[in-house]
Amino acid sequence: MNPLSSIRVVLVATTHSGNIGAAARAIKNMGLSQLVLVTPKHFPSEEATARASGADDILQSARVVNSLDEALAGCHLVLGTSARDRQIPWPILDPREAAKHTIDTLEKQHHIALVFGREHAGLTNGELERCHFHVHIPANEDFSSLNVAAAVQILTYEIRMAYLQWQQQPTKMQKHETTLEQNSLPCTNDELEQFYQHLEQTLINVHFLDPNRPRHLMTRLRRLYGKAQISKLEMNILRGILTETNKAIDSTPNLN
Amino acid sequence: MNPLSSIRVVLVATTHSGNIGAAARAIKNMGLSQLVLVTPKHFPSEEATARASGADDILQSARVVNSLDEALAGCHLVLGTSARDRQIPWPILDPREAAKHTIDTLEKQHHIALVFGREHAGLTNGELERCHFHVHIPANEDFSSLNVAAAVQILTYEIRMAYLQWQQQPTKMQKHETTLEQNSLPCTNDELEQFYQHLEQTLINVHFLDPNRPRHLMTRLRRLYGKAQISKLEMNILRGILTETNKAIDSTPNLN
Repeated sequence: MNPLSSIRVVLVATTHSGNIGAAARAIKNMGLSQLVLVTPKHFPSEEATARASGADDILQSARVVNSLDEALAGCHLVLGTSARDRQIPWPILDPREAAKHTIDTLEKQHHIALVFGREHAGLTNGELERCHFHVHIPANEDFSSLNVAAAVQILTYEIRMAYLQWQQQPTKMQKHETTLEQNSLPCTNDELEQFYQHLEQTLINVHFLDPNRPRHLMTRLRRLYGKAQISKLEMNILRGILTETNKAIDSTPNLN
Repeated sequence: MNPLSSIRVVLVATTHSGNIGAAARAIKNMGLSQLVLVTPKHFPSEEATARASGADDILQSARVVNSLDEALAGCHLVLGTSARDRQIPWPILDPREAAKHTIDTLEKQHHIALVFGREHAGLTNGELERCHFHVHIPANEDFSSLNVAAAVQILTYEIRMAYLQWQQQPTKMQKHETTLEQNSLPCTNDELEQFYQHLEQTLINVHFLDPNRPRHLMTRLRRLYGKAQISKLEMNILRGILTETNKAIDSTPNLN
């Protein structure tokens, strides 16, 4: 079973159905599955289905409940999003820290709730006190109120990133190597050196490089091609260009 | 001035106005400011304004352009979001890596574009080839297509997180500025495009490229040179090589 299915996304008193649909889509995009709606204004609705854009299963299995307590029953960790400073200082996490905490908690096979408030008023103080930690998205201070589905997207994205890291999936490099064709393997150093020789001779042939005054030309070209991490396929192309360039020069009438 | 204002969010051929508004809101929430719309279906629109939810200034200053090239003019780093695997592998970053790269590039006071494709079809292969790197959001493989404004939200969020982190080490920027010579500035996207045209014509001239059977040659070369983040000095060298190569081919019989 997908461990991320132990995470509930709880939307409190959402007024715009479109946001419910967009949240469902974000939840499914990020590999989560549980949506709990506390007293939504309209649900189900066509607007939610349209914005879910195929995440119909998330909407269909969404639980509608009458109170936040009901939504949180059985949860071991409750994280509540909060844009505002509160009178009562509370432990605050940014989304990345919240994700790490979530994954640590999942490891113990515990249940987790991420709680999101009303479009215009967020969570009440009473609701925020139900949360073990507050999560603050470090937005632009002059324009800090995110759309609720955008906030769901950021938190679930961070959880997915932390989850993928935790899975210790084959590192990117290994994954790359297994899926890459032979051709996209980087070329070896000796192949590079042969290329530089071929390039240098060609530049002499086209009179771009004067062997008596080489300045730093080859050094600069080494730097350029070195940065590119050239693959075997790309090296074949570059060598092919040099070969054809030399042929083209040799075939021009030259009566020397 | 806010350094994040050097970042353009480029939306290509957006069909749903609501997404433009939601993207504008995300942009402002995360402290960015530039929105560029390539041939949007409807703009301006009431739906965009409603979903922007107060980010009216972002919509009002948005530039509407007729081509991606126009949108990318003057940019030093172009990142394109891509959900699909492509035939030709391209350097791929996840959003966190992309944000790091963005901040590294901002440090040099360069311009950056983040490019987002159509709602149902993403970016075309031709558009993706204009990008130096592809950004892949590691979504649920069974449901991987994010809403375009959600993708904007994730990328701009990661950039904000990287920016806030970077702000805590302000000396790096100063160090960079003094050590960089003008010549080691990366070339702009339009300089790159001119180079590709020059390269393509030269490859035709040396009979390496058959314009009737181009295969993927130019795509592969775009990928190669895109990876290298070519500087202005290096670009001068590459253009010089092409010019001399063409002269060497054209050279009339030498009667010396």
